[in-house]
Amino acid sequence: MMHPKKIKSILFLSTVFLLTNAAVIHGQNNDKGTPNFVIIFADDLGYGDLGTYGNPTIKTPNLDRMAYEGQKWTNFYVAASVCTPSRAALLTGRLTVRSGMSSNKTRVLFPNSKNGLPAYEITLAEQLKKVGYSTACIGKWHLGHKEQYLPTNNGFDYYFGIPYSNDMDKISGKEYKEAAKIGHSAIHTEDYNVPLIRNTKIIERPANQNTITKRYAEEAISFIKENKDKPFFVYLAHNLPHIPLFASKEFLGKSKRGLYGDVLEEIDHGVGKIMDVLKAEGLAENTIVVFTSDNGPWLPFKTHGGSAGLLKAGKGTTWEGGMREPGIFWGPGLIKPGLVSDIGSTMDLFTTFSSLAEAELPKDRIIDGKDLSQTLLNRKPSPRNSILYYRGTDLYAARLGDFKAHFITQGAYGEFGEREVHNPPLLFNVSQDASEKFNIAANHPEILEQINELVKDHKSNLIKGKDQLAERE
Amino acid sequence: MMHPKKIKSILFLSTVFLLTNAAVIHGQNNDKGTPNFVIIFADDLGYGDLGTYGNPTIKTPNLDRMAYEGQKWTNFYVAASVCTPSRAALLTGRLTVRSGMSSNKTRVLFPNSKNGLPAYEITLAEQLKKVGYSTACIGKWHLGHKEQYLPTNNGFDYYFGIPYSNDMDKISGKEYKEAAKIGHSAIHTEDYNVPLIRNTKIIERPANQNTITKRYAEEAISFIKENKDKPFFVYLAHNLPHIPLFASKEFLGKSKRGLYGDVLEEIDHGVGKIMDVLKAEGLAENTIVVFTSDNGPWLPFKTHGGSAGLLKAGKGTTWEGGMREPGIFWGPGLIKPGLVSDIGSTMDLFTTFSSLAEAELPKDRIIDGKDLSQTLLNRKPSPRNSILYYRGTDLYAARLGDFKAHFITQGAYGEFGEREVHNPPLLFNVSQDASEKFNIAANHPEILEQINELVKDHKSNLIKGKDQLAERE
Repeated sequence: MMHPKKIKSILFLSTVFLLTNAAVIHGQNNDKGTPNFVIIFADDLGYGDLGTYGNPTIKTPNLDRMAYEGQKWTNFYVAASVCTPSRAALLTGRLTVRSGMSSNKTRVLFPNSKNGLPAYEITLAEQLKKVGYSTACIGKWHLGHKEQYLPTNNGFDYYFGIPYSNDMDKISGKEYKEAAKIGHSAIHTEDYNVPLIRNTKIIERPANQNTITKRYAEEAISFIKENKDKPFFVYLAHNLPHIPLFASKEFLGKSKRGLYGDVLEEIDHGVGKIMDVLKAEGLAENTIVVFTSDNGPWLPFKTHGGSAGLLKAGKGTTWEGGMREPGIFWGPGLIKPGLVSDIGSTMDLFTTFSSLAEAELPKDRIIDGKDLSQTLLNRKPSPRNSILYYRGTDLYAARLGDFKAHFITQGAYGEFGEREVHNPPLLFNVSQDASEKFNIAANHPEILEQINELVKDHKSNLIKGKDQLAERE
Repeated sequence: MMHPKKIKSILFLSTVFLLTNAAVIHGQNNDKGTPNFVIIFADDLGYGDLGTYGNPTIKTPNLDRMAYEGQKWTNFYVAASVCTPSRAALLTGRLTVRSGMSSNKTRVLFPNSKNGLPAYEITLAEQLKKVGYSTACIGKWHLGHKEQYLPTNNGFDYYFGIPYSNDMDKISGKEYKEAAKIGHSAIHTEDYNVPLIRNTKIIERPANQNTITKRYAEEAISFIKENKDKPFFVYLAHNLPHIPLFASKEFLGKSKRGLYGDVLEEIDHGVGKIMDVLKAEGLAENTIVVFTSDNGPWLPFKTHGGSAGLLKAGKGTTWEGGMREPGIFWGPGLIKPGLVSDIGSTMDLFTTFSSLAEAELPKDRIIDGKDLSQTLLNRKPSPRNSILYYRGTDLYAARLGDFKAHFITQGAYGEFGEREVHNPPLLFNVSQDASEKFNIAANHPEILEQINELVKDHKSNLIKGKDQLAERE
């Protein structure tokens, strides 16, 4: 038996806990009770880079906790396997073949690119602003570096970050691969002249990338604290673990996985801080936090690139390793916990968050995102049953249910082979064979037929947008 | 504010919960307070086959919970990458090159093998019996099928299971690979004449493998309930997911991963039942449950074999995929939760459990197991800093700290290449490069030197045991 006095004191603590909890439940920060949204987006992170997705030496206890307390999606996709189109698709809920934000002439936008996200496109931030949200973009943008293309002209009240990839604007120093062999002492933030922008003004150049991950998390936290009296949307797009890799002193040398692990452990640490603040401010019960990444690991950088785990290939390809990513949804008052092996896409965030925020979807264009609300809140089956795998403006593969057909395969960055057209297509059951090892096309003509129908439907109403990436100055 | 009546009723429930919990803490089932042990051992399960180790479509919520509430080890090894030697090493805490339970002439024991585990060897069950434990072996034995070699002659009070692999004693039917292509309807438990034994008597032949996983869990639960007044040790060695794959009706067709997933989901379900019973009987706070497997996935069986996740190769090889396994330790009153990326081995269970049970280690022989108690209970660093990778009686590779040297590499079952001797050895940093892709031998002669020292030390006191596997009748 426990001593009665001890029981009494525990009961007192329980009461305090319950009352605090009760207060939290009522802590909605707007009259309608629509939730806040935080998207934490990593860069070039692989499917196998988090503890809960099987990494043996990168320790991500905060993301693991998010996954355990929330929903861990294991068939969650991006719409393109390189930066610019993947980000454009997430923010507009549309395939970039429609918006022109992908190209067969170049993979992504560069510091001398002429254009950016067309004004016609509607971002998730614009959707949420319509219904009274405060909106912030913190981190890497990569949808046009000129003022008219920056986040503050695309629905975001606030922007703090770099306009394109952290390896662009290289001005001096060793080739990265050579520097990486030597170790962190040879990798200098001053070798890249990347600007750090607040709203539309450059405030630091070169951006100090050693501290950038920490600063992004701090900026997100400040924005949340300052905007807690209204519903808010924070799009926190870390520019790491894209190479060049940098971590702050506190994290350098911390991970057994080397510098790549240090970087991810710092990102994970920031995730924990954000969860803590949401709880401390009484906002956790009415906020959805999502964690995912823009595309698979950049494999040619060896240990400075990530791992796609059991998935094949990485960044730049339409194999699963290029386009399937961790997808973690956390929200203790909203998300019904569990493992979700249904299909989802980053494009669905546009539609789902619009729906939860009661922001009407645009009716004058095709939106590719699906509304996952009922899966997130009530564990209903996902309304998404297919994925289209684009490379540039060509459709390389399509998934319908468990099955994925490759019409074209092609490696990237010198790995995984040359472009090859397949007729009949390669066919994999990616639920049973996630590593895409066993081609079963010969046994399943009926499935190839169904996938052909899906593609035909898709192409029948497809109007390709004007290429926004190719023009340079 | 919450209604006072509601608070009162919640407080009442809290009191009940606290009192029940208090009772559980005092629920030690022996005077010394030494813990109970349950080892759940899978067969041919890969590093990437559980949810918490990154599998996208095999749902293992109970094992995931064990890992989250307990310790999830990500560098946990077996001592051999095939059945017989792996099991012998676990149960004796010794490399099988010493006991003679590995051979260069045959991989494992067969139904016509003459011998088994030598009487001289001391099993973990014998250790624990010395200090008053009740002991049960449930499942696959594979250390000798003749009466004198069976579990009941090796320290176990009770045995229920099959004496060797579930694919042995094949008597009719299609080749398994052909049957697997057709699907479950073509896979018949009657095609294998494997006996099911209780203690030393055959009680069913052929064993009905459709229900065997469920029956093993039930047997474990019965044994726990019947022996709860003494400390107990249950060694539950499932004979699945080794092919041929079978699942009971309740699980057939349940998993998106196909039959292999069905099998694992049934094993996971049994794990959950065992955890439930330990809680219900007030034993959870004083019991340690371990989950691991005997070796990596049997890859040539395609979707009927498992996945090693990001690790290279599988069963039969000394690549990481053959010998690194999930290692989950659960015990809410004992195990300090967390992710452990330190090195551990199944051989350490012998030493660790002997230590926790206060059973003196044998002094007349070399024991290879290390005592992990302080890592399990207090998250101290693991005392193990090395792994020796044997194939048969040859040392193929050795790991010291983060680094692994391959002296010989060789595929298995027709995959991953011919035997090749490496001089200088291949060298991988398996903490940074778990997939063993980037040979760094040329840059680290000093590490090769250290590993050579380790091997020299090991060989200096090695007396090879007489081959117990090769002789047939």
